[in-house]
Amino acid sequence: MIKTDILIIGAGPTGLFTVFEAGLLKLKCHLIDALPQPGGQCSEIYPKKPIYDIPAYPEILAGDLTDKLLEQIKPFEPGFTLGERADTIEKLEDDTFIVTTNRGTKHHAPVVAIAGGLGSFEPRKPPISNIADYEDKGVEYIIRDPEIYRDKKVVIAGGGDSALDWSIFLTDVASEVTLVHRRNEFRGALDSVDKVQELKDAGKINLITPAEVKEIHGEDHVTGVTIIKNKDEKFTLDTDHFIPLFGLSPKLGPIANWGLEIEKNAIKVNNALDYQTNIPGIYAIGDVNTYPGKLKLILCGFHEATLMCQSAYQRIFPDKKYVMKYTTVGGVEGFDGTKKEAPKAVVKKIE
Amino acid sequence: MIKTDILIIGAGPTGLFTVFEAGLLKLKCHLIDALPQPGGQCSEIYPKKPIYDIPAYPEILAGDLTDKLLEQIKPFEPGFTLGERADTIEKLEDDTFIVTTNRGTKHHAPVVAIAGGLGSFEPRKPPISNIADYEDKGVEYIIRDPEIYRDKKVVIAGGGDSALDWSIFLTDVASEVTLVHRRNEFRGALDSVDKVQELKDAGKINLITPAEVKEIHGEDHVTGVTIIKNKDEKFTLDTDHFIPLFGLSPKLGPIANWGLEIEKNAIKVNNALDYQTNIPGIYAIGDVNTYPGKLKLILCGFHEATLMCQSAYQRIFPDKKYVMKYTTVGGVEGFDGTKKEAPKAVVKKIE
Repeated sequence: MIKTDILIIGAGPTGLFTVFEAGLLKLKCHLIDALPQPGGQCSEIYPKKPIYDIPAYPEILAGDLTDKLLEQIKPFEPGFTLGERADTIEKLEDDTFIVTTNRGTKHHAPVVAIAGGLGSFEPRKPPISNIADYEDKGVEYIIRDPEIYRDKKVVIAGGGDSALDWSIFLTDVASEVTLVHRRNEFRGALDSVDKVQELKDAGKINLITPAEVKEIHGEDHVTGVTIIKNKDEKFTLDTDHFIPLFGLSPKLGPIANWGLEIEKNAIKVNNALDYQTNIPGIYAIGDVNTYPGKLKLILCGFHEATLMCQSAYQRIFPDKKYVMKYTTVGGVEGFDGTKKEAPKAVVKKIE
Repeated sequence: MIKTDILIIGAGPTGLFTVFEAGLLKLKCHLIDALPQPGGQCSEIYPKKPIYDIPAYPEILAGDLTDKLLEQIKPFEPGFTLGERADTIEKLEDDTFIVTTNRGTKHHAPVVAIAGGLGSFEPRKPPISNIADYEDKGVEYIIRDPEIYRDKKVVIAGGGDSALDWSIFLTDVASEVTLVHRRNEFRGALDSVDKVQELKDAGKINLITPAEVKEIHGEDHVTGVTIIKNKDEKFTLDTDHFIPLFGLSPKLGPIANWGLEIEKNAIKVNNALDYQTNIPGIYAIGDVNTYPGKLKLILCGFHEATLMCQSAYQRIFPDKKYVMKYTTVGGVEGFDGTKKEAPKAVVKKIE
């Protein structure tokens, strides 16, 4: 059982910044995310794309935003349960919560902050009837650890940036990379398209277009796939892995069944007071919530996280009065023993 | 008469970021600030101090925060009325406003956003009976333009960072720099104290301590001051300027008389809905406002500015429906003709 003060569901920018604001209040955080790394959409969907409306960043790549936030929260030593989806919540008699993931990991906390963005990202799956039987047995929709493909044969399907970028990356890892796409045209960054062309010309990527994977074979693990090319050429290819990268679509998912008030696929909170839901102790911050005037912007999530932490503090320590200190005045004291603070003024005689 | 869409009172971080969010909605902004430069407290009071709680900045100097915001809003060509205090407001029959400064500059806009921080910074003045007669005639409490001291004699009074730093700076500008302080000890950055010691030893700063300026002389302009040193040595010093730098203290000032609902020295807004005050069309954002759960943090001002701009848009264009576009998707189109946007994906055949 993982124990923490604030259990954050969703490790996107809002969830990450919550760790910082909680840390200033000496509260510990643990984050759960279905994706294999922190950053949410910023890391998984558009790490190389610039964002222009983060205050005081005229331009920042989404991946760099994640890195900066991770650096900022490092002193507060957040815990992470990654690659697992928060599935069920149970309220105990003492008004604390137990959240269990799809892989059975249990987390216990007095406060739950749902920073789930547009939902947990679920992969779009190709219409192959028995594909579910091969999940985690050679079929992966998200690449969590490229090392598992070391010296293996892989078939990647898809025509977008993910399919292009992972095909490029895995040429240095896998023994054989095949890229299957139902059109001859790919849609992605010019660099990536050109690089795949180059690797194909060099014989490092086996390109099969226009084509679709129609069947998967193997007993306990994928051993091959059947491909149909040009609508009628049917053949089977030996492979250890089949990786369909058809994009991720966000789904509110199991959270929708937690008894929270839902409106327009988002969780209703108490009109920007402290972003608490209809269940006391459960907050919703960032893109996942809704209230009058709501804007789904990262900078709004930062504000919501900050107000939410003050309320969480009151819930955890009902008898303590917290007096806010500006970081410029009080510095930042990490749980890891680090301390950052402004250089102190001296009082010194001039003679 | 200066005309604009959103007239922002206060050019601190919240006021500056408002220009950006308004710009995304194609609304023009003009800012009024009593200080001689943008940035508010960040520029005037603690430009060299680090802030640790700006999201995605593990550490940023307050002065650099201002610079980054100015860079971010540059494409939206904000106007500035600096060194003037917004004094009176008049609501016209068409529900637009005219705001007039203490120097008579008039501004006309359909929306007024008060981003006044803790108030306009008023200098603490030394107790010299006729000092008001010499204001702008050789007595300055804030240095707006160091060039006016070129080849002049100046007497600076004070014992903190401002007095130290300006004494250092003006040794390269003025013909003679005298620093008067009522104690022998100065309070400031170690570097600054040591530098003043060094300049004093080199004969470039004339240091008089412990001493106070007690009288000012001159007909139409300052020509000298009378100083008492060690409680009983009284003498007169010729000077062209007397600059008391005893700190600035924020005062809500004339805004308090605009008919706005005030609570705890802050302007009440409508519970975080769109940060509108009791007078429709006048908003209050950042440290100057109050509502349940309010935190006086820069990051909260950014959020408030963003929601406020959406509401301002509805006020200015009641019949238009604005559809928010993410900057990552839609880019940023400046009023200056610049355009920033993410590199577009290509659709390209690989053969």
